[in-house]
Amino acid sequence: MDILILGAAGMVGRKLAEALLDTGRLGEGEIARLTLFDVVPSDLQSRGAVAVETRAGDIADPATVQALVAQRPDVIFHLAAIVSGEAEADFDKGYRINLDGTRLLFEAIRAQPDYRPRVVYTSSIAVFGAPFAEPITDDFVPAPMTSYGTQKLIGELLLNDYTRRGIFDGIGIRLPTIVVRPGKPNKAASGFFSGIIREPLAGVEAVLPVEDDVRHWVASPAAATGFLLHAATMDLAPLGARRCLTMPGLSISVAEMIAALREVAGDDVAALIRREPDATIRGIVAGWPRDFAPDRALAAGFTADASFQDIIRAHIRDTAAGG
Amino acid sequence: MDILILGAAGMVGRKLAEALLDTGRLGEGEIARLTLFDVVPSDLQSRGAVAVETRAGDIADPATVQALVAQRPDVIFHLAAIVSGEAEADFDKGYRINLDGTRLLFEAIRAQPDYRPRVVYTSSIAVFGAPFAEPITDDFVPAPMTSYGTQKLIGELLLNDYTRRGIFDGIGIRLPTIVVRPGKPNKAASGFFSGIIREPLAGVEAVLPVEDDVRHWVASPAAATGFLLHAATMDLAPLGARRCLTMPGLSISVAEMIAALREVAGDDVAALIRREPDATIRGIVAGWPRDFAPDRALAAGFTADASFQDIIRAHIRDTAAGG
Ligand SMILES: NC(=O)c1ccc[n+]([C@@H]2O[C@H](COP(=O)([O-])OP(=O)(O)OC[C@H]3O[C@@H](n4cnc5c(N)ncnc54)[C@H](O)[C@@H]3O)[C@@H](O)[C@H]2O)c1
Ligand SMILES: NC(=O)c1ccc[n+]([C@@H]2O[C@H](COP(=O)([O-])OP(=O)(O)OC[C@H]3O[C@@H](n4cnc5c(N)ncnc54)[C@H](O)[C@@H]3O)[C@@H](O)[C@H]2O)c1
Repeated sequence: MDILILGAAGMVGRKLAEALLDTGRLGEGEIARLTLFDVVPSDLQSRGAVAVETRAGDIADPATVQALVAQRPDVIFHLAAIVSGEAEADFDKGYRINLDGTRLLFEAIRAQPDYRPRVVYTSSIAVFGAPFAEPITDDFVPAPMTSYGTQKLIGELLLNDYTRRGIFDGIGIRLPTIVVRPGKPNKAASGFFSGIIREPLAGVEAVLPVEDDVRHWVASPAAATGFLLHAATMDLAPLGARRCLTMPGLSISVAEMIAALREVAGDDVAALIRREPDATIRGIVAGWPRDFAPDRALAAGFTADASFQDIIRAHIRDTAAGG
Repeated sequence: MDILILGAAGMVGRKLAEALLDTGRLGEGEIARLTLFDVVPSDLQSRGAVAVETRAGDIADPATVQALVAQRPDVIFHLAAIVSGEAEADFDKGYRINLDGTRLLFEAIRAQPDYRPRVVYTSSIAVFGAPFAEPITDDFVPAPMTSYGTQKLIGELLLNDYTRRGIFDGIGIRLPTIVVRPGKPNKAASGFFSGIIREPLAGVEAVLPVEDDVRHWVASPAAATGFLLHAATMDLAPLGARRCLTMPGLSISVAEMIAALREVAGDDVAALIRREPDATIRGIVAGWPRDFAPDRALAAGFTADASFQDIIRAHIRDTAAGG
C-alpha cells in the first residue's frame, strides 16, 4: 500500500503517521510507502518495511500537488490547512490554502486516468454557526461564521460531488476541538481548553478566559487518529452521497474538565488554573457549538473517547513517553 | 442609480431588465444606467432616462468581470449560470462558469476600494437533495445531488462570507422551478412542468413523462422578478449572517396543474397532454424537493404566486403581449 498524508507535520498528521509506522499496516494492507507532505518538513524516518518519503512544499502550487498525486497513492489523508484564526486574519491565504489547495488536490486526482483512491478529508465542527439546535443533529444546516468554516464546508461539498462523480472515494470527518493539544500554547481562541489541562500538569499556571459553564465538543488526539484510520478502511457505500460526518466527541463544560483534572491529578494541580475573564474570547466561544448527536458517525463505527479523565490520563502517558 | 445584470439575456434576466426599464426605478432610486451582460448579447434598448449598455462576454474571464465591476454599479444582479443538465454533462464548464465565475465577480468587487454594492445572487432549490424533510424548513441541511446544486451552494457560502467580511451586501435567493417558462421547449429534465401548460395553450401536444402525483415547488417568471426586485431593495440587516433564503412557491402536483389548466383554458386544451412515462425522467424527478416552509423569506416580505390558475393566466397575457 502506498499512503500520502498532506499536512503530515501538523499535530494530528504527526500522530497519524506515527500510528501507521507503529503497525506498518492500514486495515488489511501492508504499507510499502508513506509519503509525508507539509510546508514544514517532517522528521519521521522509515521504519520496518515502510519507506518514508518526505516532501516539503505548498499545497496551493499545482505542480507540487500533481507530482504528489502522480505517485497514485491508494489512500490520501488531506489534513493540510491553516487554522481558524489565521484564515480570518489573512483572507487570501485562507482561501488559497484551504479552498484552492483542496480543489487542486481533487483536480490532480481527476487528471489521473483509471485512478480512484480513498480520500480522507479533515473538516471541522466550525462548519456550524449559531443559532444552534441543541444537540446538533446530522440534518442540521451547516452555516459557518468564519472564513475557515466556509472553506472547510466548501471542501466537503467538493468532496461529495467528486465522489458522486466517481473521481475518488471520499469521506470527510468533522473533527471536534482536539484536547489536550500537546506542545506549546498556540494563539487559537480555543487554546485554553487544552491549556487549562496541559499547563497545570506541567506545573505551570494556566489562564481561563471564560466562565466555568462554557460547554464545548472535544475529542483527544488519539481519538482523532482513530477516526482517520477508521475512515481510511471502512466501507463507505452505506454512507450514500453524504460523505461528511460530524465525529463523536464529549460535550463537556469547563467546570467538568476542571473536576476531571482534580480527580486525576489532585487539588494542587487544579489550583494552577487562574480565572481571568476575557470578553473577546468569551464572545468568540459563545458562537461555538456545544453539543452534537452524531448518529451517522456512531452508526458507521466511529467511537468517541470514553471520558475526559481518560483523555487526561492519555495526555500524561504521551507526555512521559515523549520525554 | 447604476445597475448591472449578469446573465441578462436569460429568461429571468430579460424579465428583470424589462421590469426595470418599465418603471425606470429601483425602490426609491432612479436608474441612470443599466448594464446588460451575457455571453449572448441582449437586444434591449435605452428607454426614458435609463441608458442601456450591452456587454457581451464570459463571466469566467477575469478581465471582463473586472471591467464590469470597475463601473462600480450600486446593485449587481448575478444570474449568469449554466443550468443543471449542462453542468452535469460538462464538469469543467459547470465549475468554470458557476463557481469560478461567481468567485471572480466577488473578487473583482473586493478589489475595488471603498465600494460595497448590493449583490443579488440567484441560487436554486437544487442545493437540496434527498432524503428530504417534508416540508423542508430553513434549518434543513442543503445536500446537493448534482454538480449544479453543489456550485450554487458554494456560491451561497462565498456570498455569506464576503458579506460577513463587509466586502459587499449580499443576498442569495433560491428560486423554485420557474413555470411557465416561455419560449421553446428546452432539454432540462424539469422542462415538462412548463411544457404541459405552454404547448397545449399554443394548440400543440405536450408529453408528460411522469405520474400525475408528482409534486414540485414552482413559481412564475413574474414572481421571480418580484423576488429579485425585493431582494435588491429590502433591508438586509435583519437576515443576520445567513443571507440565502429559499423563495416562496407553490407546492403543486401534476394532477393539480392539469386541473388548473382545464379550469382556465378548458377540456380541449387539457386533452393535448399525452402521458408517456419515461423512467429516466421519473428517476431524476424523484430526487427533487416537493414542499418547503420558507418562513424566513415570508417574514422578509417575499411573496409567492397566489395560485397556479393565476400563473397560467399571466402566461396567457404575456404570450399575447409578446405577439
Ligand atoms: N486540531 C483541532 O482542534 C482541529 C479541529 C477541527 C479540524 N481540524 C483540522 O484537522 C487538520 C489537522 O489539524 P491539526 O491540529 O493537526 O492542524 P496543524 O495546524 O497542527 O497542522 C496542519 C498542517 O498543515 C500544514 N500546512 C499549512 N499550510 C500548508 C500548505 N500551504 N501546504 C502544505 N501544508 C500546509 C501546516 O504546516 C501544518 O503542519 C486540519 O485540516 C485542521 O483544520 C483540527
Ligand atoms: N429557471 C429556473 O427554473 C431556475 C430555478 C432555480 C434557479 N435558477 C437560476 O436563476 C438564474 C436565471 O435563470 P434563467 O432561467 O434565466 O436561466 P437562463 O439559462 O435562461 O439564463 C442564464 C443566462 O446566463 C448566461 N450565461 C451562461 N454562461 C455565461 C457566461 N460564461 N458568461 C456570461 N453569461 C453566461 C446565459 O447565456 C443565459 O442567458 C440562473 O442563475 C439559474 O441557475 C433558475
